[in-house]
Amino acid sequence: MKVLVINCGSSSLKYQLIDMEDESVLAKGLCERIGIDGSKLTHSPAGKEKYVVESPMPDHSVAVKMVLDALVDEKVGVIKDINEISAVGHRVLHGGKYYSDSIVVNEDVKKVIKDCFDLGPLHNPANLIGINACEAAMPGTPQVAVFDTAFHQTMPEKAYLYAIPHEYYEKYAVRRYGFHGTSHSFVSKRAIEVAGLDPENSKVIVCHLGNGASLSAVVNGKCVDTSMGLTPLEGLIMGTRSGDLDPAIVEFIANKENLTVSEMLTILNKKSGVLGMSGGISSDFRDLAKAADEGNELAKQTLEAFVYRVAKYIGAYTAAMNGVDAIVFTAGLGENDAVTRRDVVSYLGYLGAEIDEEKNKVRGEETIISTPNSKVKICIIPTNEELAIARETVALI
Amino acid sequence: MKVLVINCGSSSLKYQLIDMEDESVLAKGLCERIGIDGSKLTHSPAGKEKYVVESPMPDHSVAVKMVLDALVDEKVGVIKDINEISAVGHRVLHGGKYYSDSIVVNEDVKKVIKDCFDLGPLHNPANLIGINACEAAMPGTPQVAVFDTAFHQTMPEKAYLYAIPHEYYEKYAVRRYGFHGTSHSFVSKRAIEVAGLDPENSKVIVCHLGNGASLSAVVNGKCVDTSMGLTPLEGLIMGTRSGDLDPAIVEFIANKENLTVSEMLTILNKKSGVLGMSGGISSDFRDLAKAADEGNELAKQTLEAFVYRVAKYIGAYTAAMNGVDAIVFTAGLGENDAVTRRDVVSYLGYLGAEIDEEKNKVRGEETIISTPNSKVKICIIPTNEELAIARETVALI
Repeated sequence: MKVLVINCGSSSLKYQLIDMEDESVLAKGLCERIGIDGSKLTHSPAGKEKYVVESPMPDHSVAVKMVLDALVDEKVGVIKDINEISAVGHRVLHGGKYYSDSIVVNEDVKKVIKDCFDLGPLHNPANLIGINACEAAMPGTPQVAVFDTAFHQTMPEKAYLYAIPHEYYEKYAVRRYGFHGTSHSFVSKRAIEVAGLDPENSKVIVCHLGNGASLSAVVNGKCVDTSMGLTPLEGLIMGTRSGDLDPAIVEFIANKENLTVSEMLTILNKKSGVLGMSGGISSDFRDLAKAADEGNELAKQTLEAFVYRVAKYIGAYTAAMNGVDAIVFTAGLGENDAVTRRDVVSYLGYLGAEIDEEKNKVRGEETIISTPNSKVKICIIPTNEELAIARETVALI
Repeated sequence: MKVLVINCGSSSLKYQLIDMEDESVLAKGLCERIGIDGSKLTHSPAGKEKYVVESPMPDHSVAVKMVLDALVDEKVGVIKDINEISAVGHRVLHGGKYYSDSIVVNEDVKKVIKDCFDLGPLHNPANLIGINACEAAMPGTPQVAVFDTAFHQTMPEKAYLYAIPHEYYEKYAVRRYGFHGTSHSFVSKRAIEVAGLDPENSKVIVCHLGNGASLSAVVNGKCVDTSMGLTPLEGLIMGTRSGDLDPAIVEFIANKENLTVSEMLTILNKKSGVLGMSGGISSDFRDLAKAADEGNELAKQTLEAFVYRVAKYIGAYTAAMNGVDAIVFTAGLGENDAVTRRDVVSYLGYLGAEIDEEKNKVRGEETIISTPNSKVKICIIPTNEELAIARETVALI
């Protein structure tokens, strides 16, 4: 069975075609600048050379059509006929409070995705366009929506309610939703296996550390708390996002700089995080590590603050669960940066957590990096959101 | 030696006259509605009846004059002559990044208090007016400024810098300051004595839980982190303040409700916290506990969320310090509410923290409430900001 995984952004479309027999990626690719001058498809069939088409894509329907054409192309294709695609799994950002699981798309599901435009103004409209475009191009092929928020829907009220007037929750559904759910779900499940935990008696903290970054606390496979909130702005220090902040800072700086609240939020989303904190060095941690090595004080402070925030969240979630069995690192930075992992764990001696410096010298490898004596298992589990979406899709059709 | 302690608000003035021989309160009182119709002085001499004067107080100078008159009054006074007052200690909200200790007021100090008007727009102007009024009424008597932010000035960059563009720190001094510093300082010092810790090797978490609420992490007597931020809005859920929030919520609700960012901040400061979260029941925890007992679900959720946030902060600060020796409860709720203390500590089994249910049945008493086997000492230390200010004042003159 072959599953196409689609992740639509406002002007982009990422895809992977996965053969679920062996979970291998047959092809993957990216459409860029949809609806903008200079549209481009980059198609990468497994084991073959990249194939680039520069051709106008006025909308996502055209993009989907081009992707399907590439997949069945005589030269660069990987299947003979579109009918070989058994189902399409779509990443959808926001399922609001409605979905705690993936679901086969029908008109009701589309209505909910639309009802959540407010909560995911940049992503949900694009996600819906992608679904409609695939339905039109592959009538009869099941479409599955996999929500980035779904895994976190098991959080209790004490974790998801903000201390604001209750009417805002009732009227506008203002609450913590959390994101990266597909990754947190995939990684926490795998961690239970890798660390050899009892699935019914397990406390896991997942540190998804990439350009976007979030933590989740997972008890017996169910999410009980997560660091992102109503939007992906809250929580950890990220590449360009501030994470946690005194909410009064929004007004304070807006007044000083004569900015609207909307402009201020753009700064907090796009120009803050390690990029802003370092005085503009980079949103890429490798650049910051290099600058810090070269003696740049702001780069050093920024990396220390990033690690410190992760450690504090691990501490907070350990209290939230009254203990922790495994701490898992995933995503770009979590999988690949041994220094960040070591520095985070250096705060956790009081938990009996001990990292094995030798085992920690790996990149992107599924492995346990704690010492045998460590009271907490520390693991690296590479995340794979596309495979997770494909698996969810197969499970539903 | 007798010290007058003054705490000026924008339209109020609280005072205590303390005899430092035995640290007893000779008299205390409050001027209300300064500069507003219906001004009133309530003067309470120790061991005597309350004395109320309703008389116009167009400004703080008049209020100070009335306080001094009351203190030397034949009937309700407690001293013969104003010269018996050796010094005046003023609570000043914001010392910015300039002062990490209390200081005898001179023109430079007044300039700094003025420079920090921006950071404490409601309090610092009133604090300065109070200082000037006392100087005018008691020329030659030393005035001491005790800053609410001073104790937290020992925090490292990783704790006080926000992940926002660095220029905002440089241009506008936007950073974490923290408040309740006099209380955190007083209580953490006393906790080291009460819990029998080594002052040079001690990790203490102070939970100042009142209508305003904040935590601090204190290593060897020095503050390393605290939950309030640029303003007293950040951190715990409070009586009417939201505490931590996805910063994007400010814009989201402002747009929905057609509010300015300033109106939104007023809601987050005055109509949120347990008051807003409970749907308006009360900002007083006793009312919420009563409502919860009577089966009100929102009241229950609100109290659970309050306790959960405190427990998460304790967990975070334990990670920040890589361990904790003592957890201290203080201020109205912390000193008096056994249920809150029990519920908070119930999250901390993984630290080996264990509360003694019997010992916990106290109100406002300096005592250890953990079991002898508890790996973390849990204490109640009643705070006394006025006495702390008086002691700081004596130490400086």
